[in-house]
Amino acid sequence: MTERRYDPVSGEWRTFAPQRQDRTFLPSVSSCPLCPTRDPNAPTEIPWPSFDVAVFDNRFPALTADPVDPDVAAIGPYAVEPACGATEVVVYSDDHHASLGTLGAARIRLVVDVWAERYAALSVRPDVAYVFIFENRGQEIGVTLHHPHGQIYAYPEVPPLPARELRVAREHLDRHGTCVLCDVVGAERADGARVVVRNESFLAYVPFAARFPYEVHVVAERHVTSLLDMRDSERDLLADMLERLLRSYDTLFGFPLPYVMSLHQAPADDGESLLTSHLHFEFTPIHRSASRLKYLAGSEIGAGSFLNDVPPEAAASELRAAVRRHSTSAAD
Amino acid sequence: MTERRYDPVSGEWRTFAPQRQDRTFLPSVSSCPLCPTRDPNAPTEIPWPSFDVAVFDNRFPALTADPVDPDVAAIGPYAVEPACGATEVVVYSDDHHASLGTLGAARIRLVVDVWAERYAALSVRPDVAYVFIFENRGQEIGVTLHHPHGQIYAYPEVPPLPARELRVAREHLDRHGTCVLCDVVGAERADGARVVVRNESFLAYVPFAARFPYEVHVVAERHVTSLLDMRDSERDLLADMLERLLRSYDTLFGFPLPYVMSLHQAPADDGESLLTSHLHFEFTPIHRSASRLKYLAGSEIGAGSFLNDVPPEAAASELRAAVRRHSTSAAD
Repeated sequence: MTERRYDPVSGEWRTFAPQRQDRTFLPSVSSCPLCPTRDPNAPTEIPWPSFDVAVFDNRFPALTADPVDPDVAAIGPYAVEPACGATEVVVYSDDHHASLGTLGAARIRLVVDVWAERYAALSVRPDVAYVFIFENRGQEIGVTLHHPHGQIYAYPEVPPLPARELRVAREHLDRHGTCVLCDVVGAERADGARVVVRNESFLAYVPFAARFPYEVHVVAERHVTSLLDMRDSERDLLADMLERLLRSYDTLFGFPLPYVMSLHQAPADDGESLLTSHLHFEFTPIHRSASRLKYLAGSEIGAGSFLNDVPPEAAASELRAAVRRHSTSAAD
Repeated sequence: MTERRYDPVSGEWRTFAPQRQDRTFLPSVSSCPLCPTRDPNAPTEIPWPSFDVAVFDNRFPALTADPVDPDVAAIGPYAVEPACGATEVVVYSDDHHASLGTLGAARIRLVVDVWAERYAALSVRPDVAYVFIFENRGQEIGVTLHHPHGQIYAYPEVPPLPARELRVAREHLDRHGTCVLCDVVGAERADGARVVVRNESFLAYVPFAARFPYEVHVVAERHVTSLLDMRDSERDLLADMLERLLRSYDTLFGFPLPYVMSLHQAPADDGESLLTSHLHFEFTPIHRSASRLKYLAGSEIGAGSFLNDVPPEAAASELRAAVRRHSTSAAD
C-alpha cells in the first residue's frame, strides 16, 4: 500500500506509506547505508568508494513515478489517488561525521547546484506540481540516519503551507502591488534588530513573527522565484550564507543544533506565480534553550496557532554573537 | 513582553510570551502546583484540601483579559497587537495520578459541563473570537506538569486550523448543500472499517486520511455546533465515549498513551457558521508503534503535508481490539 488520500474536512492531501514503518532506524556507523561502499562485499546505497555529493531515490519511497494502484476505494467526500511524485535523498558528503555547515563553501555550492538540477528535472515531470527541498537534522527532529543528507519530495499537488503562502502573497500583490517577501526583506533590513547575517545577495533574519525561538529565514534580496533564476555569483553567495548561518547555529549552544530546513520556491508549472513566489529558506530549530525543546502541542497541532517563548530580537542578538564568535575563532 | 505579532508571509498571528520560558517544569509530586493544598504553609494553585474539578487562569499566561501594550512597533507589512484573550487551566481531579480516562463517567461528565460553562463564558467576551479547549498529555508531547489537566485558550481571532476547516466546510456547503462533517460521519459509519467505538450519539473513528497513525476523531452524529447545543443525555453519552476511547488508548500499547486532544466548536460570535461548525474532538497520539514516535519534520513543518506510516484501517482494527480487551478485563 502506498497512496494519497484527501481529507475533505481540512482540505488537505495526506500520503500513506506503511512500508516506511520498517525503514532503517539509526544504524551504527559501520552499517550506514549512506556511506560509500568501501568493501564490495558490504555494498551501501552508494556503489562508489568515495564521492562528493550523491542523489538517488529513497529506498523507502513515499512518492514514486510509477505508483501502485490504491488499496481502497474512496468513500463519501473522501478521495484517493496513487502516490505519484518522487522522494529523493541528497547525500552531502561521503564523510559520515560531516554536516552541511562544515563542508566548506565550495562543497555547499555543489549541493546548491544539485538542488537546482533536481528542481529543474523534477519540475518538468507532468505528475509533479511542487518540488520541496528540505533537510531534517538531528535525532530530536526524528532523523533515522545520521549521515549528513537532505531530501527532495516532489508532490503531485502544491502542499498546504506553500499553497497558503502563494494565496496570501497573491492577496498582498492585489492590494499593494508588491511582493510580500520583498516588502518583508526591505523592512527587516531597514530595521536591523532581527538580522543575523547579510551578504551582497542574501539576508538571514529571525522573522518578526517567528514560530520557533531560533527560526531564521534566508531570503534572496532580489526577487528570484527559484534557484534557476540565480546567477553563478548568487549561488556562491548563497553557499557563503548557508555556511555562516549553520556554523553560528552550531556555535549557539555549543552542540550541533537540530533543525528542519525548508526551501520554498515557485511551483512546478507555472507562469502564474512569478510575482508571488520569492525563494526563501526557512530554518526551524526546535530548541528554546540549550536544554529545553519547543514542542508542537495543542495550540500548534490542534489550532495551528504558534506560541513562542523567546523574543525574536533577543534570539537574533544571540545568533549575531554566535556569528561573531565563530568568525573570531576561525580567524585565530 | 506579551504580544501578538502578525506574519504577512503565512497570513498567521503568533503569540509571544517570554515569561513562560521560566514556567514550572516537571516538578516532583510533592511540589505539584495542581495538587490540592494539604498543608496551609505550602499552598498550591488550588487553595482547597480537596476538589472535584478546578478551573483558573494559567499562572504563566500567554493571553489575558488586560494585556500590557506591545513592546515593539509594527514594521513594514507586519502587525502587532496586545495579547488579548484568556489561557485557563482545567484540573480534572485532585488525584495526581489520575487521568481523564480513569476518572469514571460521572466525573468526565462534570469536566464536560465545565468545558461548556467556560466556552459559554469566554465566548461572550468582546475580545474573544475563538475558544479552544484542549489537552496535552504526556512528556513526549512536551507536558511540563504531570497532574491530570487540560487547557483552554481563548484567542482574539479564529486560529489557522479551525479557520481553514470553516472555509473548507463553507465551500462544501456551497457546492453540495450539506455539512462536510455530517457527510464524513455518514460515510465512516456506513463503511465501518475505521470505526473504533460508537454509542447512541457519538462516533469515534480513525479518519480515512488521518495525519497521525492512531489519530481518532470523536464526532457528534447529530449536527451540533458546540457543547451548548447538547442535551443532558448527549453530554452523558459524550462522557461515556471519551472514557471508552481513552481506556482503549491506554490498553493499546500497555502504557498511558501521550496525545493532544483538540476540541473544535463554533467560533465565538457567530451566527455565520451554524451550518459549517460541527463539534468534533481530534485525538492525535504521536506514537507510530509501541516504541517509535511519529515526528513532525520537513514534510509536515515545512510543507504542511502529512506522511503516515500506518494504514487507518489497521490502526482502527488495533484500537477496536483494545476497546474489546478493556471491556473484557473490566467485566472480569
